[in-house]
Amino acid sequence: MIPSEKKMDILISLCKRRGFIYPGSEIYGGFANTWDYGPYGVELKRNIREAWWNMFVRRRADMVGVDTPIIINPKAWEASGHISSFSDPLVDCKSCKRRFRADHLLEQISAKPGYDKEKPQDLKDVRCPECGGSLTDVRQFNMMFKTSVGVTEDDSSVAYLRPETAGGMFVAWKNVRDTARKRLPFGIAQVGKAFRNEITPGNFIFRTREFDQMEVEYFVKPEQAPESFEMWLKVLKSWVEDVLHISPKNVEYVEISEKDRAFYSARTIDVEYKYPFGQKELYGLANRTDYDLSRHQEFSKEDLRWLDPETNEKILPFVIEPSLGLDRSVLAVLCEHLDSDEAPVASEGEEKGEDEDRLVLRLPPALAPVKAAIFPLQKKGGLAEIATDLAESLRKKGIAVEYDESGSIGKRYRRQDEIGTPWCFTVDRESVEDKCVTVRDRDKMDQTRIPIADVPRWIMDRISYE
Amino acid sequence: MIPSEKKMDILISLCKRRGFIYPGSEIYGGFANTWDYGPYGVELKRNIREAWWNMFVRRRADMVGVDTPIIINPKAWEASGHISSFSDPLVDCKSCKRRFRADHLLEQISAKPGYDKEKPQDLKDVRCPECGGSLTDVRQFNMMFKTSVGVTEDDSSVAYLRPETAGGMFVAWKNVRDTARKRLPFGIAQVGKAFRNEITPGNFIFRTREFDQMEVEYFVKPEQAPESFEMWLKVLKSWVEDVLHISPKNVEYVEISEKDRAFYSARTIDVEYKYPFGQKELYGLANRTDYDLSRHQEFSKEDLRWLDPETNEKILPFVIEPSLGLDRSVLAVLCEHLDSDEAPVASEGEEKGEDEDRLVLRLPPALAPVKAAIFPLQKKGGLAEIATDLAESLRKKGIAVEYDESGSIGKRYRRQDEIGTPWCFTVDRESVEDKCVTVRDRDKMDQTRIPIADVPRWIMDRISYE
Repeated sequence: MIPSEKKMDILISLCKRRGFIYPGSEIYGGFANTWDYGPYGVELKRNIREAWWNMFVRRRADMVGVDTPIIINPKAWEASGHISSFSDPLVDCKSCKRRFRADHLLEQISAKPGYDKEKPQDLKDVRCPECGGSLTDVRQFNMMFKTSVGVTEDDSSVAYLRPETAGGMFVAWKNVRDTARKRLPFGIAQVGKAFRNEITPGNFIFRTREFDQMEVEYFVKPEQAPESFEMWLKVLKSWVEDVLHISPKNVEYVEISEKDRAFYSARTIDVEYKYPFGQKELYGLANRTDYDLSRHQEFSKEDLRWLDPETNEKILPFVIEPSLGLDRSVLAVLCEHLDSDEAPVASEGEEKGEDEDRLVLRLPPALAPVKAAIFPLQKKGGLAEIATDLAESLRKKGIAVEYDESGSIGKRYRRQDEIGTPWCFTVDRESVEDKCVTVRDRDKMDQTRIPIADVPRWIMDRISYE
Repeated sequence: MIPSEKKMDILISLCKRRGFIYPGSEIYGGFANTWDYGPYGVELKRNIREAWWNMFVRRRADMVGVDTPIIINPKAWEASGHISSFSDPLVDCKSCKRRFRADHLLEQISAKPGYDKEKPQDLKDVRCPECGGSLTDVRQFNMMFKTSVGVTEDDSSVAYLRPETAGGMFVAWKNVRDTARKRLPFGIAQVGKAFRNEITPGNFIFRTREFDQMEVEYFVKPEQAPESFEMWLKVLKSWVEDVLHISPKNVEYVEISEKDRAFYSARTIDVEYKYPFGQKELYGLANRTDYDLSRHQEFSKEDLRWLDPETNEKILPFVIEPSLGLDRSVLAVLCEHLDSDEAPVASEGEEKGEDEDRLVLRLPPALAPVKAAIFPLQKKGGLAEIATDLAESLRKKGIAVEYDESGSIGKRYRRQDEIGTPWCFTVDRESVEDKCVTVRDRDKMDQTRIPIADVPRWIMDRISYE
């Protein structure tokens, strides 16, 4: 067990040392809390994304995917309300010139969430937390990144990097409705980058200005909304527990009260995870009513209603939105499964000098960046050839595998433990005769002997969701 | 066979009608030649991307992946030369104010490629192709999208949307070198969005301002460069022919002469595809020498050299770069496999009114968005139940499948032909007794009877690359 207060430091250090996540633009002194996913990080992220796509889209008859651009017609953000009100309330310190979020300052003082834009609270008694200076009035700062598209003075126009993937799905709704041959309830899903010019990014990859979202907009008849909300809540719980293998005791499903949720929302649940730095948002689930489609209908002047083939009536569907952050999923999975053991009793093949505590990522096998490591006990005697052949045959089947022949077996185990590899296969002298290898389990730490020919099937059986 | 001059219109119309690709932001009157991938388009795009990742990264022992941000430290683009010279030469018409690319105007006149920035050609004799007016002098227009990061006056700074995914990989090189435990030659791969403020986007998804790249930077000792170049050329050919199933006669590997390639490149091959609108670039392969690493080394003041463990010498690796456009891959695959048959002889279950020419996407099964369609010959007699059960069991195994019970079997075949579904399975009255279904092949148009229980295995055997 790693104490909470040490966990982030240990995790960030492991992520850099092993190649999961590096500080972004590091050779140029970094940049704006950006991060690079390294070789193992990108595979972990990909595995989570693909598992999501399979569970939320491909394995469901009532879901289809789309992929819409990051830069779309800015009228869409007018309709969605992002241009007028997607903003943070900011104050500056008059002496030290530092800038703060008013809502964060108020939370620190009152331990209550939020700053109510409609009823601005008094910040007069609040001083700068850095230097004690007095603060300016609150100003709204729009969080969308702006850019300019087109090259001539005439046709060049201000455009925005999408602050969420949802907008593109509402804009594409009409085309999907008209071509996908689906009946309500059915949903549209998208995964991709979103951008927010946050004033205080931080906590590793928890809050960054650029991040990946995995969102579903599920269109339903208004009367189906409560039931569909419950259905997606169940799916979210199953995703968290059965796919990410996150313990229910580390997750809270927080029902947001009417006065704290967005004015158009009929129900919102925040899925919060107990990160080492506190309980904070992981996912959200909202009944957005017909707010989005009615706004886009108003601004686009297109008929976005659904023709119910049974009643022949046209209705504007309600939308249930399960919204997931991909980077936060990666972070929660890493936090949840990072563990340390006391130094284990040396097993066969281990040598001295490996008696420090063992750091281990107990990743679910289906998500682990490397499924299997293949070690020859020694290079000579044909062991290296057998091991490389096995590694190559697994790789050709698309199984992520690593071959390692350097250092003691104990040291090689430790490396694989730190990157979360569930199984290590060792080729020893007997393998030449009996065509078997020893498989060591990351968590149980036990060893079993199985035929080399069975290894691919043995692994496949353990990483599939079927 | 579809005549070339009609192909794009037919393709664009099919893409919209069936839900592959829609005009972007269409309800708002469109936007800047953007496109939305619809339900089938996103699956086709995903399948190509995943096939690329498997072939270029996961199945190779000498490759690792990364995922770096779209917005990185702008110093990286200074080092790469993008800030000073990633530009198009533009001219304006003095009368009608339209803007043109000088190189395109020169090409139209001389039918020779290019405008040489170093030796500006005389455009004096060239008139506006739209109104015949006279043109301004050539000005350089930087193609990177600009934005601003950070919120206070002090820390806010100009930043750019990456014009290519390569830059992030060079910036991450040092961390990958230090943690990935690889020896030269080995490569880094990345897939993701890139942005270029093109003056003339067009030809459907051929040239858009926002697009997905799939790039490899392969680091080698200088003396290994020629051999590695040949190795990647082979991989590219195999990708085009064995994965995309594009006929070699539609592809040209154009060796770029020394005077036409970038000054730092020791060798460049453009992989060009014969699109219906002309032979144009699909992919590129370049020996970039040590240009990128030496520039980043100079600008970052970090030692980016590689320590050769055998000679104990430090060298700056050369880079071989196979660069692939994902959207262009989608477009080439669609163009290559769109076909039409003369009206086929009606087969069992087909009715009148289906005697127009058959439009068919002969997609390779592994890339097809839908692998199998399941039809009950009629709804009653328990056939619909058997068919939905079969569809559901395939879906649960992650096989993309469609269930369709509406219209004649002939009409249902036509729908699946247009979206490229390789196999349609029909449940008929005999199925209740013999537990078999009839499978109809999209290309051979023949019909075979196989046990329902064998269907998953039957499909899996035909969509795997092993």
